[in-house]
Amino acid sequence: MGTARIVFDRWDGRYARRMARVRSSAVRDLFAAASRPDIISFAGGMPEVSRVPAEAAANAAYEAVIHEGSCALQYGSSEGRPALRAQIVELMAEIGVRLTADDIVVTAGAQQGLDLLAKTFLDPGDTVIAEGPTYVGALQAFSAYEPDIVCVPMDDGGMRIDALETELARLGPRGAKFIYTIPNFQNPAGVTLRPDRRRRLLELAREYDIPVIEDDPYGRLRFEGGHVKPLRALDDDVIYLGTFSKIFAPGLRLGWMTAPGPILAKVLLAKQAADLCGSAFAQVTAERYFSGTRWRRVLQGLTRTYAERRDAMLGAMEEHFPAEVRWTRPEGGFFVWAELPEFIDAGVLLAEAVEHGVTFVPGSAFYPDNRGRNCMRLAFCYAEPEAIEEGIRRLSEVVEDRLELYRAFIAAGALPEVTEGVA
Amino acid sequence: MGTARIVFDRWDGRYARRMARVRSSAVRDLFAAASRPDIISFAGGMPEVSRVPAEAAANAAYEAVIHEGSCALQYGSSEGRPALRAQIVELMAEIGVRLTADDIVVTAGAQQGLDLLAKTFLDPGDTVIAEGPTYVGALQAFSAYEPDIVCVPMDDGGMRIDALETELARLGPRGAKFIYTIPNFQNPAGVTLRPDRRRRLLELAREYDIPVIEDDPYGRLRFEGGHVKPLRALDDDVIYLGTFSKIFAPGLRLGWMTAPGPILAKVLLAKQAADLCGSAFAQVTAERYFSGTRWRRVLQGLTRTYAERRDAMLGAMEEHFPAEVRWTRPEGGFFVWAELPEFIDAGVLLAEAVEHGVTFVPGSAFYPDNRGRNCMRLAFCYAEPEAIEEGIRRLSEVVEDRLELYRAFIAAGALPEVTEGVA
Repeated sequence: MGTARIVFDRWDGRYARRMARVRSSAVRDLFAAASRPDIISFAGGMPEVSRVPAEAAANAAYEAVIHEGSCALQYGSSEGRPALRAQIVELMAEIGVRLTADDIVVTAGAQQGLDLLAKTFLDPGDTVIAEGPTYVGALQAFSAYEPDIVCVPMDDGGMRIDALETELARLGPRGAKFIYTIPNFQNPAGVTLRPDRRRRLLELAREYDIPVIEDDPYGRLRFEGGHVKPLRALDDDVIYLGTFSKIFAPGLRLGWMTAPGPILAKVLLAKQAADLCGSAFAQVTAERYFSGTRWRRVLQGLTRTYAERRDAMLGAMEEHFPAEVRWTRPEGGFFVWAELPEFIDAGVLLAEAVEHGVTFVPGSAFYPDNRGRNCMRLAFCYAEPEAIEEGIRRLSEVVEDRLELYRAFIAAGALPEVTEGVA
Repeated sequence: MGTARIVFDRWDGRYARRMARVRSSAVRDLFAAASRPDIISFAGGMPEVSRVPAEAAANAAYEAVIHEGSCALQYGSSEGRPALRAQIVELMAEIGVRLTADDIVVTAGAQQGLDLLAKTFLDPGDTVIAEGPTYVGALQAFSAYEPDIVCVPMDDGGMRIDALETELARLGPRGAKFIYTIPNFQNPAGVTLRPDRRRRLLELAREYDIPVIEDDPYGRLRFEGGHVKPLRALDDDVIYLGTFSKIFAPGLRLGWMTAPGPILAKVLLAKQAADLCGSAFAQVTAERYFSGTRWRRVLQGLTRTYAERRDAMLGAMEEHFPAEVRWTRPEGGFFVWAELPEFIDAGVLLAEAVEHGVTFVPGSAFYPDNRGRNCMRLAFCYAEPEAIEEGIRRLSEVVEDRLELYRAFIAAGALPEVTEGVA
């Protein structure tokens, strides 16, 4: 933006206090670099929209205007169109959640759901519990309402419930406004919350009387292993966020929220204040796209595509990455999380990686407090398998170079100093 | 919503403090009543989207997906597509405002612009200056950030600058975070800010060092009189909100904001947190719709249609309304503001009006403090001239009945008690 040119800000000191906390998304800032044709991007979690059948989507949009223009072009209800909410009821039933259309509010992607929930629940200084690392968009949405964000570590089974319990005991009953979790193929860690941990998390949430927000953008993109029931299927009080971005297209900005009635009523007020109502144009288009069965075959093919890309990434990492690097093995979704030796700063590494024609997101972007600096999120969703192999090869060279430097330091008995992160 | 059934709220006392302030829009709550076929609605400010050429809009949507699907279906930049921002540059040039695309952020309707500005500027207890009455959506958007909203009265020349000056003197330099104004065909009052007052308002804003937000949804819907330059054309520091809702269709949820660079950079961060980015699908569709010249002829025809409806409403009011009622005579836009004798409560009147098959919005919806209870906003944008005449006839009967009741009270020497408003 041209605004980058401006140095003097005559409104400095006039902004709301919250603006000191809201930082730009490192992920979004990387989109510009990612668009260079010579760059192989493991940065953005962008779905492969080229697999959406263009004719079907275009016809859905055309017919939305021609046959339902009086609705599609007009203001709509704040909760969203009844027909689309009825379709969401069916989607949710398929993953074991029984709802009626009244239990659902259509949002501008799941991101708006996060913003509205933060707006509904958070006063400055309130506590929020999330996985660490967690979705950068959730950190942005929450931060605007000035909470303290407590991060609970994960392992291969998802959020570590022992660590959660320690935090809850420290905070006490109602000591946090909500627990935010991405149980399936977590962004950025790629891990999935084990069924036994899901039950235990819900028990603890009841014991400490703290609402749970389940963010599930990737749940339908499972490559292997059996379906794991969402938290919402185990407990009616769970607030659940879904999105059409990964099962149709992010360009429509459509997601949904289900929550207990009183919470949903508050969220609806917050939504009226935020945008009056969602896009009826996008909603009618989605209704028509999802009215047949073709979307299911498209989604199956898309899931196979992502699975191949994950295989390509994990295979190449196995082959090329130095032994000092550890990484997760996701059963679905978009992301692998890699941990470098702790004296390596992934932000510094990124600059070198871009020179070598590959990008990723440094781990510190996914923490509220600059942790994760020796980590990388590697998105396998967007590049073809051959490009993924080449990108991992390039990245491994950059990692290897830096490791050699530090091995030499260590051999000389000089402990390296940890440099500053960029996020 | 089914949530209305629920009485007990186990999360009561857990919501953010702001939620005590956010109330539902009386306007939106009336939408349900307005959809009864026997009701003539003067309530919602809904554009006549039946005049949008369906084939042109449908083709724009179809081609957006077929020819630009890789963009239209994908995540986009937070500031909005360069091509649409270039078109907005041209639209703004036509009303005397010179910009570059970098000066613009595309928003989800102007409503999102209001929310993002409030988020960017307002801490609890801050002061905002607005016209009284003012746009109900602005009151909702601002209230979520817990400011004190100071209302400056209007007359036929728009905001009374003498009253503004009094408030500014009371509040002192930087005593308010911003001044919010709808200078053209104000919602709900229908009046337009006089050119000399525009200049004086800007002088005062400079003197007291307070940013001005100019909300201009109706500027291009002028029925008579000459074009009046927007505030932004007179002062580069004015924050300007525009929308495609009235020149194309609200169903796409597209608007824009222009503001000085440092403010726009903050707004952009707030937008990332709110929804990541706007709908590329809607943006590409709008680009294609606005790429020719046909939209201009459509808008001219639409403006004539609204002018005929205004004439029908003012004519019928002249003919039927009791002498005790006063009202504004808008030169454009959607709304007439009517003031009843102060002992009449328009909220009570509304219940009777619905029984008689006509709706409007009671005036108290447009104040933060329940003032305006003896006023009504009458939207002429949505009904055909014959229906408008019939609706005004019905409404005048209701008003006349109530007036007779009170005339009898007064004749008997019994002063009527002012009943509670409903908004």
